[in-house]
Amino acid sequence: MRAIGQTINIGIVGGTGYTGVELLRILSRHPNASIQYLTSRSEAGRAVSEIFPSLRGVCDVVFSDMTDAVMDQMAKACDLVFFATPHGVAMAHTPKLVAAGVKVIDLGADFRLQSLDDFEAWYGMAHTCPEILSQSVYGLPEVNRKHIAAAQVIANPGCYPTTAILGLKPVIDAMNTHADALIDGRIIIDAKSGISGAGRQGKLSISYAETADNFSAYGVTGHRHTPEIAQGVNEILSAKFPVKIRFVPHLVPMIRGMLSTIHVPLSDQGAALNWQEIFERAYQDDYFIDVLPKGVFPDTRSARASNKLRISIHHDLDVLTIIVVQDNLVKGAAGQAVQNMNIMFGFDETTGLDLVPVTP
Amino acid sequence: MRAIGQTINIGIVGGTGYTGVELLRILSRHPNASIQYLTSRSEAGRAVSEIFPSLRGVCDVVFSDMTDAVMDQMAKACDLVFFATPHGVAMAHTPKLVAAGVKVIDLGADFRLQSLDDFEAWYGMAHTCPEILSQSVYGLPEVNRKHIAAAQVIANPGCYPTTAILGLKPVIDAMNTHADALIDGRIIIDAKSGISGAGRQGKLSISYAETADNFSAYGVTGHRHTPEIAQGVNEILSAKFPVKIRFVPHLVPMIRGMLSTIHVPLSDQGAALNWQEIFERAYQDDYFIDVLPKGVFPDTRSARASNKLRISIHHDLDVLTIIVVQDNLVKGAAGQAVQNMNIMFGFDETTGLDLVPVTP
Amino acid sequence: MRAIGQTINIGIVGGTGYTGVELLRILSRHPNASIQYLTSRSEAGRAVSEIFPSLRGVCDVVFSDMTDAVMDQMAKACDLVFFATPHGVAMAHTPKLVAAGVKVIDLGADFRLQSLDDFEAWYGMAHTCPEILSQSVYGLPEVNRKHIAAAQVIANPGCYPTTAILGLKPVIDAMNTHADALIDGRIIIDAKSGISGAGRQGKLSISYAETADNFSAYGVTGHRHTPEIAQGVNEILSAKFPVKIRFVPHLVPMIRGMLSTIHVPLSDQGAALNWQEIFERAYQDDYFIDVLPKGVFPDTRSARASNKLRISIHHDLDVLTIIVVQDNLVKGAAGQAVQNMNIMFGFDETTGLDLVPVTP
Amino acid sequence: MRAIGQTINIGIVGGTGYTGVELLRILSRHPNASIQYLTSRSEAGRAVSEIFPSLRGVCDVVFSDMTDAVMDQMAKACDLVFFATPHGVAMAHTPKLVAAGVKVIDLGADFRLQSLDDFEAWYGMAHTCPEILSQSVYGLPEVNRKHIAAAQVIANPGCYPTTAILGLKPVIDAMNTHADALIDGRIIIDAKSGISGAGRQGKLSISYAETADNFSAYGVTGHRHTPEIAQGVNEILSAKFPVKIRFVPHLVPMIRGMLSTIHVPLSDQGAALNWQEIFERAYQDDYFIDVLPKGVFPDTRSARASNKLRISIHHDLDVLTIIVVQDNLVKGAAGQAVQNMNIMFGFDETTGLDLVPVTP
Repeated sequence: MRAIGQTINIGIVGGTGYTGVELLRILSRHPNASIQYLTSRSEAGRAVSEIFPSLRGVCDVVFSDMTDAVMDQMAKACDLVFFATPHGVAMAHTPKLVAAGVKVIDLGADFRLQSLDDFEAWYGMAHTCPEILSQSVYGLPEVNRKHIAAAQVIANPGCYPTTAILGLKPVIDAMNTHADALIDGRIIIDAKSGISGAGRQGKLSISYAETADNFSAYGVTGHRHTPEIAQGVNEILSAKFPVKIRFVPHLVPMIRGMLSTIHVPLSDQGAALNWQEIFERAYQDDYFIDVLPKGVFPDTRSARASNKLRISIHHDLDVLTIIVVQDNLVKGAAGQAVQNMNIMFGFDETTGLDLVPVTP
Repeated sequence: MRAIGQTINIGIVGGTGYTGVELLRILSRHPNASIQYLTSRSEAGRAVSEIFPSLRGVCDVVFSDMTDAVMDQMAKACDLVFFATPHGVAMAHTPKLVAAGVKVIDLGADFRLQSLDDFEAWYGMAHTCPEILSQSVYGLPEVNRKHIAAAQVIANPGCYPTTAILGLKPVIDAMNTHADALIDGRIIIDAKSGISGAGRQGKLSISYAETADNFSAYGVTGHRHTPEIAQGVNEILSAKFPVKIRFVPHLVPMIRGMLSTIHVPLSDQGAALNWQEIFERAYQDDYFIDVLPKGVFPDTRSARASNKLRISIHHDLDVLTIIVVQDNLVKGAAGQAVQNMNIMFGFDETTGLDLVPVTP
Repeated sequence: MRAIGQTINIGIVGGTGYTGVELLRILSRHPNASIQYLTSRSEAGRAVSEIFPSLRGVCDVVFSDMTDAVMDQMAKACDLVFFATPHGVAMAHTPKLVAAGVKVIDLGADFRLQSLDDFEAWYGMAHTCPEILSQSVYGLPEVNRKHIAAAQVIANPGCYPTTAILGLKPVIDAMNTHADALIDGRIIIDAKSGISGAGRQGKLSISYAETADNFSAYGVTGHRHTPEIAQGVNEILSAKFPVKIRFVPHLVPMIRGMLSTIHVPLSDQGAALNWQEIFERAYQDDYFIDVLPKGVFPDTRSARASNKLRISIHHDLDVLTIIVVQDNLVKGAAGQAVQNMNIMFGFDETTGLDLVPVTP
Repeated sequence: MRAIGQTINIGIVGGTGYTGVELLRILSRHPNASIQYLTSRSEAGRAVSEIFPSLRGVCDVVFSDMTDAVMDQMAKACDLVFFATPHGVAMAHTPKLVAAGVKVIDLGADFRLQSLDDFEAWYGMAHTCPEILSQSVYGLPEVNRKHIAAAQVIANPGCYPTTAILGLKPVIDAMNTHADALIDGRIIIDAKSGISGAGRQGKLSISYAETADNFSAYGVTGHRHTPEIAQGVNEILSAKFPVKIRFVPHLVPMIRGMLSTIHVPLSDQGAALNWQEIFERAYQDDYFIDVLPKGVFPDTRSARASNKLRISIHHDLDVLTIIVVQDNLVKGAAGQAVQNMNIMFGFDETTGLDLVPVTP
């Protein structure tokens, strides 16, 4: 590992999606990052600024094809490789990179589920490197900071799970402390995402005329983030009592932004606690987590284009409603990946992430 | 009352809001309606088509001021008066209209809550005509059709309550039939509305740059539709076992449309039922209610600018998730008001409401 | 031809695009129309309401495949066939339909350009039925009403040309009357369209995240509507003096709607005229054309989901700025097609087109 | 003046508008800026992050009231005061600040028009400090860099004029070099702005339901930026031959962004030039101006939330169409103001302005 202050050499596999371009937006201003390789099957040979005019004059890397030769060069020259690819790609290449001592952050799903059965059930393919999977770390810094610092391979969390797990962490921690379930019933996670979450692709269902001035639910009984949230709440947060969830995602006619409304039915013991105080204390040392004052409602734009995740708490009788907002492409993807990178390489956790939310 | 087929004379008090202009859009094509009076304090003397160019050549009524003299003329000349006004206005004028034999449909809130205490608590004023309130009918045709036919005064339901009560009606009916609560815990109503629901007004919080590309929750513990939903579920649907709800509204960056996601925690007995079949049977005779085939998700635009309310059922283990969509200004306001009018005056319930949803 | 008042049998080729579904929305309420056939290569065998839930309970026609057998049946059974297809399709099937006495309205481009060379140059294929092309009529009722009434084949105008030609008609008519060019320089047509104009398709460039909160120009020197506008102004309006145009289209982040800003540089003689009066008189008998009072600016929503086209005139020194708005899918496509149908079959021109613009 | 590298003390008058919050977003990350005062009549005493939650943890300045005492303190303590206020405010306070040696950048309109008559005619009030007006500098760095460096008072340009003047600068420079008008007729500036340009205020005309899914023109014959553009082209660019313009602004349903389509009718001499080359050469040394390669169309989001202004050139026969995009709140307001500040205080012109456009 390089010393603090040094520049690290970076490869990005899959640079034409929205998480890819967001990584480039952030890393091109990061004082310790040098993008050496950027691959794309479809755009090989073209400058990234041709595809994304927003990067003209900011980042002029040329896309490489994703050949074995290029992957070999990345294994030699890079300190860190990000995968911003559909599932299946990262696990095909990670073993070679790990063998070469390169660190890996996968923004896709290949290392998110520790259960091989779950992975196969939800992603329709067998996992090809279970030994690496078992050593990989779930890259949620506010939960796993120490493990991340020592990790070789990071599973960057899904956008919905980031809101759900961080929204529920103080509840699970309180439960574990009080040695009581505190929760009486199934937790409802009613989540809403901007359309960029569906990726950068030509698909009728995400075309403007289909989605604008429109709102819909989807995937009630079958979204891939459901097992990731369940794993996050029960295993990564180590819930003493099993927690059951219902996750329903919705599509909002906005580009970026995610808001999760988490409804927690409370037991009498749970209802007696001061949740505002519990949440404020839980996150007092986490720069990117902002617990709002009592009575304030968050909106997604208060986090737009930044790595902030904001939480507000509404406790009424026997329900605790936790509202979490973030930018799905930043704290929900590329920003969190850079936060992980900073931790892995010993940089200050906020380096390159001084992104002030864009208002209006 | 006029015979079927005849034309009725109509007055509209408060024609400059969005429910007002939507009433005009619908009534201007209704074969049995003749708009005689249209009042507005702010726009008196101007043609409605000056304010709403969409009505040029369609409706050229001139706004009257809302003076006593005008109200007297309406009492003499009108068969029916709609109030599309803030709370407080309808109850001030309804006694005189009722005394003159005029029927009244209030699209505002004055006659929605039967409890005088609730009204005062939520609307900040004492009710001024409790005797009329007690005889008024809650105008949800799919629940109250017979009472509506005989009513003199109709409380046109709020937009959120329309989705919540119609979404839960088959559940409550099943509960009453089975003599078992079926429900095990608090029902979560996570509702989302387009911005026109906030009315036609110059307010920073609903300006374009504040609300576009943004999503927010509001009113978790204090929305006025909460008691109306509770009353609807427990009293109007006559639930045998008390039903507890949690209602959280959200604001969606779209003009029209409302989607309510209703999460019902089921008892074992409740979980054993075939809810898809229960819902399909419940609404088989209601033209404006569309229960979608299993597995289909509704989006708000499938009801846009029409009087349709669509429901889809997602039953998984111990949760029943009911998703309801409608156009908040039509089935959630003006369209439902005209549906009530049709029933009150013996017209076919669908007259003037053959509005095909606008897609895309 | 059927007598007035009778029902005509209709076939629609290509019912899965936005002009297709808009035709269905309008025709399903048209008292004289009976949709007999609806074809789609991709959706054959499915009910149209499966693809467009907005049509559930309104139109339950099942898509036929576009085979020769189906086309033969349409030739036998239909009075009128609409083509809502990409260029090339209508001209392949029209000769057989015409031979069978069926009338045809092509919402695509096959019969829009009378010059065979222009057609080939702009659409990349030779025209396959020039003899039918030469007898076809450009279906702009406010210009060509008499020819339309007698036509067998109608070229339904493009959306941009509809605004440009109707916006300029009073100018060209005045020019022809005054025997002076009135215009001194090239006319600039700076046009803006909602995204539905790009069709119903899965294409990255029209996906929500690419187009929302964004505005762009396109096709400055190469849009296919350029020769159609030039033909419209010079030949269909029979300009005595040649008129030169510059057409620049832009893409607006909205679903429907089109606004064309037409800048006409005036000669001294042109600048001396009272253009407000000229426009008002020009369209006084055209139900669907609305010349706004002096000083009023039109917005696209004043025509949303209706067949209205509104014009405002701004004359300042030596420039006449004509602003035209319409719904690109209605007056710019399906509504105008039905207007043509009404004229061809002797129905009142407004039958089935009593669509009040949706506001807000 | 402070030495390079030092921190300057800054006051901002009027911090609750969109240009105000954008200034705060930029300056809070500027290494040489220290915000000392922030005033607001309506929000005095509240922390700025209460009004703008996006600034929580980033900027915690408390609003001062705009009293004489506060203005006196600013005169003593500040090196630079920005006015982000309606017209009339800056000219009331600037004389005192100038007398105290404080530099001023007015983001409002008080110092934009050099003609006192024009100012009075367009802004409805007499100018109260003509002597300061005559010494103020129009803060368009790419035109006036040297004068800005020496200026005490800067008139920060309007958003539309920034696009128009920078879009036309290479044309006027070519005209002056060739000693020929090059232009044959009136230049049409057909401009389109996002809604944030109308300011942060509660006004019906900019509410979401009025403006979304809608497009309109406004102010054809009376926008205040018309004389500013005319002054810019003729006087600030020192056109040798008088240039006539027609400016028509439009409102786009997007938050930020501005696109101006400038149609220049060319003389034969003008049509013979290689405009692509002329533009590329003209701006080769200006970091914030990006001349796009031939054939590329700019969209507004390629500049979103950044200080970039991008230009594309489309030359066809006798028309030169120049398309200019920028973020109206950055290069069109706050970003340009900081660019001016950097020049005035000897910082690198790009300091604090390394804002990578946000895509998507």
